[in-house]
Amino acid sequence: MTGPVVCTTVAQLREEIGARVTRGARTVGLFPTMGALHDGHARIAQRTRAENDLAVVSVFVNPLQFGPGEDFESYPRDLDGDVARLAEVGVDLVFAPSVEQMYPDGTPVVSVTSGRAGSILEGATRPGHFDGALTVVNKLFTIAAPGPAAELRAYFGEKDAQQLLLMQRMVRDFDYPVEIRAVPIVRSEQGLALSSRNQYLSAEQADHALVLHRTLRALAAGELTLERARSAIDAEPEVRLDYFVTVDPGDLSLVEPGPGTLALVAAWVGPTRLIDNMRI
Amino acid sequence: MTGPVVCTTVAQLREEIGARVTRGARTVGLFPTMGALHDGHARIAQRTRAENDLAVVSVFVNPLQFGPGEDFESYPRDLDGDVARLAEVGVDLVFAPSVEQMYPDGTPVVSVTSGRAGSILEGATRPGHFDGALTVVNKLFTIAAPGPAAELRAYFGEKDAQQLLLMQRMVRDFDYPVEIRAVPIVRSEQGLALSSRNQYLSAEQADHALVLHRTLRALAAGELTLERARSAIDAEPEVRLDYFVTVDPGDLSLVEPGPGTLALVAAWVGPTRLIDNMRI
Repeated sequence: MTGPVVCTTVAQLREEIGARVTRGARTVGLFPTMGALHDGHARIAQRTRAENDLAVVSVFVNPLQFGPGEDFESYPRDLDGDVARLAEVGVDLVFAPSVEQMYPDGTPVVSVTSGRAGSILEGATRPGHFDGALTVVNKLFTIAAPGPAAELRAYFGEKDAQQLLLMQRMVRDFDYPVEIRAVPIVRSEQGLALSSRNQYLSAEQADHALVLHRTLRALAAGELTLERARSAIDAEPEVRLDYFVTVDPGDLSLVEPGPGTLALVAAWVGPTRLIDNMRI
Repeated sequence: MTGPVVCTTVAQLREEIGARVTRGARTVGLFPTMGALHDGHARIAQRTRAENDLAVVSVFVNPLQFGPGEDFESYPRDLDGDVARLAEVGVDLVFAPSVEQMYPDGTPVVSVTSGRAGSILEGATRPGHFDGALTVVNKLFTIAAPGPAAELRAYFGEKDAQQLLLMQRMVRDFDYPVEIRAVPIVRSEQGLALSSRNQYLSAEQADHALVLHRTLRALAAGELTLERARSAIDAEPEVRLDYFVTVDPGDLSLVEPGPGTLALVAAWVGPTRLIDNMRI
C-alpha cells in the first residue's frame, strides 16, 4: 500500500489536484482537520475517501482558532501518525502546510467573520474561535478549488454543530461552488457522543454524561420542555449545564423547539466540557 | 454596434462567462461599480475592455456599504444610461443583479472584514463601509471566477486608495487566483483628481482644492514634512483638513513618509469632502 502524497506548500497541493483533475477526477473531497486524528476523524476520512475520486485531508493547527489563553503551542502534533492513519483509509493527498505557508504575511488583515452567530454558544467560551476556523477553511476552499471540471465537497462532523452551520452559511453567503457534507455523530452503545475528551471521564462520569443524549432525545420527542431538560441536566450528579438551547440552523438565532430546529447542549461533567446536539 | 449582454442573475452571469471561456476567452476583466457611471468609470472600463478577451462590469448598489445615516435609498440609479455608456466602451457583459439576487438570505451571517485597517481613515467617517465593499467583491470574485482555463483580473481606481489596498490584501490573504489591476488617478490640467463630487465645487473652491495635490507633490519631493503639509492645507481658505498621513500600503499602518509609503489626504472644501493620494 502506498501512502498519500504529503503536500506542504500551496503550490504543490494546487499542482497535485490540477494533475488529478486533468487525469479524470470529477469529484474532490476535502476534510479539514487540525491533526491528532482519532476514530471520529477516521470515520469522516473514510466517507471522504468513499464518496470522491480524489480524497484530500488537510492537517493544520491553525493559530487563528486559538485564543490568547489557549493551547496553540501545546496542541498535539503527530503528522507521521496522522499520515499512517490516513494511509489505512486510502486518502490520496494530505495537505500539511506550515504556519508561514498559510499566513506568509503574518496575521491576515482581511479575514472572515460570522459576527454575532460566532460569538454565542461555543463562541462565548472561545472568542474568535469560529472566525479563525472560517478564515482558514475559506483559504482551504480557494486552494483546493478544482475548477469547473470537478466538484468540491467539504466534510465536517455534526458533533461540532455550530461550526458545521457556520461553514454551510459561509458557502451560501459567499456563493461558493462547494458542497458541505455533514457526517453524523457517532455514539457509544449507551448513546454518548464520541469525543477525544471522553477519555478524561471516569466510568461513573461517563454514566452521568448520558444525561445529555437522554434529554436531547426526550426534547426531540416532545417529552420535555427546554426548561425541564435544563433542570434534568443540572439535577444529574457531577454535571453542570453551560447551555441548552434550540436554534434556527440558518442563522443560529434562538427559537422555540419545533420541527427543523436544532437542539444544542454543552455541559461540564466533572472538569470535562462536553457538547452534543440533535435535530428536532 | 450591439450592446453588452445584461445579466441579472448569478446563474446567468456564470453561464455567459463559462460559454465564452469555452469559446476561447483566456482573460476575464471584472470592473465592480455601483453604477451612475461618469468619465472616471469610463476610463477604468476602457482599460478593462482593452486588456481582456472578456470585459465584465458589475453595476450593483450594495446596501452593505451604506451606513444607517447614509443614502442607500437615494443613491443614483440609471441602468439604461450605464449600459449605453458601457456599450460605447465595448464591454461584453454587464452584471446588474437585484439585492435579493446577491443576498437571497438577507444580510449575510458570514462576511468579510478588514478589522482595524477598514475602520481608520475613510473607514472612520464611514463605519462598516469597507467590510461591505469587501464582502460584495468577494462574492463577485466567486461568481465571475472563470476556472483554471482563464485568468481573472479585477480593476479598481487608485483614487480610492484605501479600498484598493484592502482589495489587494484580500486577494493575498485569501489566496485568490485574481490579479488586481490599479488604474491611476485622472487629474484636471491644474492637478485636481477627477471625482463626481467636483461638480459641487464653485470655481473658487476648485482653485482652493488644488492645495491637496500641491502638498502631496511637495511631500513626495521631500520639500514638506507631514506637519507642514497639514498646516499648508489648513491655511488654505475654505479648506478644512480631515487627515494627511503616510501609510504602509501592505497593512495601512501609519508610518513616517519614505520610499514605498503612500500619502493619503482627505479634506472638506466648503461642504464637499475630497480625497487624494500619492505614492512616495
